[in-house]
Amino acid sequence: MENQFRFELIHKSKKSGARVGRIHTPHGIIDTPNFVGVGTNATMKSLDSKQVDDLGLQLMFCNTYHLMLQPGADVIQKAGGLHTFMNRKQPIITDSGGFQVFSLMYGTVKDELKSQGRKKGDNAVLNISEDGVLFRSYRDGKKILLTPETSVQAQKALGADIIIPFDELPPYHIDRKQLIESLHRTHRWEKRSLDEHLKNPNGQAMYAVIHGGVDPELRALSAKTLTAMPFDGFAIGGSLGKTREQMIEMLGHLMPYIPTDKPNHLLGIGDVFSLEPCIKLGLDTFDSSHPTRSARHGTLFTSQGFVKLANAINRELFEPIDSGCSCYTCKHYTRAYLHHLFKAKEMTGYTLASIHNLHFMVQLMAQYREKILNDEI
Amino acid sequence: MENQFRFELIHKSKKSGARVGRIHTPHGIIDTPNFVGVGTNATMKSLDSKQVDDLGLQLMFCNTYHLMLQPGADVIQKAGGLHTFMNRKQPIITDSGGFQVFSLMYGTVKDELKSQGRKKGDNAVLNISEDGVLFRSYRDGKKILLTPETSVQAQKALGADIIIPFDELPPYHIDRKQLIESLHRTHRWEKRSLDEHLKNPNGQAMYAVIHGGVDPELRALSAKTLTAMPFDGFAIGGSLGKTREQMIEMLGHLMPYIPTDKPNHLLGIGDVFSLEPCIKLGLDTFDSSHPTRSARHGTLFTSQGFVKLANAINRELFEPIDSGCSCYTCKHYTRAYLHHLFKAKEMTGYTLASIHNLHFMVQLMAQYREKILNDEI
Repeated sequence: MENQFRFELIHKSKKSGARVGRIHTPHGIIDTPNFVGVGTNATMKSLDSKQVDDLGLQLMFCNTYHLMLQPGADVIQKAGGLHTFMNRKQPIITDSGGFQVFSLMYGTVKDELKSQGRKKGDNAVLNISEDGVLFRSYRDGKKILLTPETSVQAQKALGADIIIPFDELPPYHIDRKQLIESLHRTHRWEKRSLDEHLKNPNGQAMYAVIHGGVDPELRALSAKTLTAMPFDGFAIGGSLGKTREQMIEMLGHLMPYIPTDKPNHLLGIGDVFSLEPCIKLGLDTFDSSHPTRSARHGTLFTSQGFVKLANAINRELFEPIDSGCSCYTCKHYTRAYLHHLFKAKEMTGYTLASIHNLHFMVQLMAQYREKILNDEI
Repeated sequence: MENQFRFELIHKSKKSGARVGRIHTPHGIIDTPNFVGVGTNATMKSLDSKQVDDLGLQLMFCNTYHLMLQPGADVIQKAGGLHTFMNRKQPIITDSGGFQVFSLMYGTVKDELKSQGRKKGDNAVLNISEDGVLFRSYRDGKKILLTPETSVQAQKALGADIIIPFDELPPYHIDRKQLIESLHRTHRWEKRSLDEHLKNPNGQAMYAVIHGGVDPELRALSAKTLTAMPFDGFAIGGSLGKTREQMIEMLGHLMPYIPTDKPNHLLGIGDVFSLEPCIKLGLDTFDSSHPTRSARHGTLFTSQGFVKLANAINRELFEPIDSGCSCYTCKHYTRAYLHHLFKAKEMTGYTLASIHNLHFMVQLMAQYREKILNDEI
């Protein structure tokens, strides 16, 4: 059945661990390797779903935590699921909400919360137990219990093509004993999530999240534990090191433990510099808000490097951002006009810049697939 | 020559002063009566020019004052004019900058300035003389002299299809002697503007601005004075009263003085309630930021009245804003989704709401033209 979840391996590079594949989902195909755009609140900031579909962005990441609080998973379920609610035709992946809830304690998403005009601490984690996490909603003060079961139920209501089990995000600074305890609890939570999911798979696929922090042994243990369970794919989560080099080293150590007959995903990493080394290690998909956030801050991606729109040099450059680019923005508008929109703080500038950067990512990933097919990387 | 400015009267209603016409400009036709969208900074807030063109909005108003300060009229001239700079295919009208400069003193556009994150008083009018107005730019502190000649030169650089002579905006509370002095100076300034324009018409049309405040005699005097000069059309500016009723009464008094063989424009008035009575008096075009500002505040226009998106009733309404509406927003998204975008403060909501309200205005004006052609109003 074409619209059932499955992974098709098309080609394995002769030169590296890189591979080209195709993930089949109920809402169409995701060519891999690929970039996954982040649309936290069921919208890619400043773009509507049709614009995102037209860009050819095959997989979009939405955040269960945010959607549970606004508009509520029940509302989205009544709408007929996230695809209908936001009118997205192509595949969607949701996370478990765990990352955001734990970030409240450690502040790792404080910048994101800030950008929403809220202060860190507006949310409060009230209790963490074997059952799950109790926290207070920043929207209405209601207490919400997030457990493996309630997270999966929310993700069933949202109805994404790919869902994620509930996990614990350990802080970067943690002693080994605590990290091991956290890891075992995460494994128990992921197992409970999988059990809840398998009661009613409903065409959804579930990717495990491999943890273990910056400890190679624990990473291997996590991979071995989770790959023994019938997950449909494997995501890599948590901290992988302080630098890109440490991350690549850790992934190099970890990837041999990841089954090659299933798709994998690197959570929250998708900046242009990290992609190629990760692709060479056999990673398939990458989600990141970096291209869209950069766009809103006026940094545009081009084949010649980054363009800072606010720079005075753009004031009278009556040419596209990237002369070789075929995106909507480059086809219709100049650097000088975009520079003006940014100086005048016009929202239109954020939209046009986001279109350009997402188009860049979609094209970049197509180029990587082409290179892999030709055994060039 | 098709692309030369001219007004074609198509039909005069048998029932009222309403008329259907066609304004031919170098960038195409404006069917009248029509609504004119306001795109202050060379963009309709949250929309790009192609979206506005696709909406069928035939005339767009841009503000010379804002564009002189950012990016500068010289930059836009180097780009090849405003149409090329912002990639707008259809007609544009610019004002003289006078309204904004004088508003700095009286605070009548303070709300607008506030919404840009600036405080009233950031700008400073330094001197007003027979020559013009000297003010300090809020952007870089530079002193700028705005005179009839420099305003027209800036508007030549911008290259809009329709331009406006430099006028004085008198405050609402002013004694008759001062109002008469202001009016005569405005007439002298408009004459100087016209002279400057006629040195090099360059395909542009210039509409006079009829003043006289809330004094019927002075309004008639202004109309007589200005219609004796070879302007291409006539705009009505300044205060027309404190209420809609006073405005309609004053326009009823004034319109017999306005030549019927040229187009006319009502400056800054275009809310849905004012349109029909003004159209019946023979007014042709109306600019207003009301539809787009309302949209950004979550008020949507429908055939059934205003819809306040933030209202909880919309939370689970999985239907278009207006079931009879054929706009991009209503074709693709529901009230529930738009409600969510507004609650989540997502920019996409502002864009989709603006598209809907502008489409509503374009359709509403087409309906008025149809009614006039059928002598129904």
